[in-house]
Order: sequence, then C-alpha cells, then structure tokens
Amino acid sequence: MDTKKLNIAETLESIRLEKRLNKGDFADKCGISKSFYSEIINKKRNLNVTTLEQICSNIDVPIEIFILKAINEDKIEDPERRRLVREIRPHMKKITDLLYSFS
Amino acid sequence: MDTKKLNIAETLESIRLEKRLNKGDFADKCGISKSFYSEIINKKRNLNVTTLEQICSNIDVPIEIFILKAINEDKIEDPERRRLVREIRPHMKKITDLLYSFS
Repeated sequence: MDTKKLNIAETLESIRLEKRLNKGDFADKCGISKSFYSEIINKKRNLNVTTLEQICSNIDVPIEIFILKAINEDKIEDPERRRLVREIRPHMKKITDLLYSFS
Repeated sequence: MDTKKLNIAETLESIRLEKRLNKGDFADKCGISKSFYSEIINKKRNLNVTTLEQICSNIDVPIEIFILKAINEDKIEDPERRRLVREIRPHMKKITDLLYSFS
C-alpha cells in the first residue's frame, strides 16, 4: 500500500489561507465544527469520501480539483505518472482559477 | 449540500468489468474482503478517503482519475463547470489509457 499521497490537511489549510479565513469561520463555511476541522488538519480524523464531497461543495471547490491539489507528487513512484501529473497540473490550475472567479 | 456527485460504487464496478474479474477476485485485488466490497457497491458503506486511496493504489488507478471517472456530470449544477468537466474528460481518458497500458 502506498498511502499519504493525498495531503488532505495541508490542502484544506491552503484553501483556508487563500480565502483569508480563520479556522472557525472556515470550519463554518465547510459545514463542520471547529473541533472536527482541527481533528482533520491534525490528522486525527480520517475523512470519509461523502464528507469530503460535502466540504468541497460547501467551499465551492470541485472535488477533482481538490484531489489534484492534494496529490503529493513526490510520493508518486512511477516516473511517467509523476511526469503526467506535473504536466496536467498547470491546466487544472487554469481551471481552478476560472472556477474560483465564479464564486 | 449537493452530494451524490460521485458514483463510487458504479466506478468500481466499471473498473472491475474492464478488468474482467469476478467480485471476489476484484475485492482481493482491491485489498478488501468480498463482503466489504459488496457493502460498498450496494452503498451500505461510506468509504473513507484513505481506504479509497489504498484501493486505487492496489488496482493501479490514480485517485485523481478515479474521482474524475466517478463524477456524475449531470449532478453538476453550474453550466460552465459542467462544460469544463466535459472538456477535460477526453484528455483524462487519454491519460487513463496511457496509465492502464503500464500495468
């Protein structure tokens, strides 16, 4: 098993910082309690897919963009796949920017 | 909350069928029990992100491709976003094909 490829906690925190919100306000926006948010970012809680989907929906970030943002490229072992992920990222970035500008 | 945008169960089943495996053999490949697999595809179990990540890793499908495959486009309310997802999909398909050909 190769896990920890997804930086869920770091990605949530980076979106929170982009939105310039404190943890309480961001947790509100996510639709979860501040203590649950803290557990997630301190990696004490394992999110289920439905909850992640709901959080993404609440913060207006498409889940596929969230996942792509959360991928830890350094943990991708296959060099060809690593190259592909690096190649597709700028395009996804453009889409993210476009999507963010809607909200 | 707009959920059910991700067809996790259907996506797993379509990958299983592509690989021409029965449920028991596919569950083995996923690294989970056949009964757990049945619970997932009958939507009686809510997968956590780490488990989905491990399953994707075990079946050699990058999680970002899995998520993109699992998105139910019809459930995307924003027309511009729906258009973008439809636009990026063929490119992701090419990447999937390339990735599948590694395994």
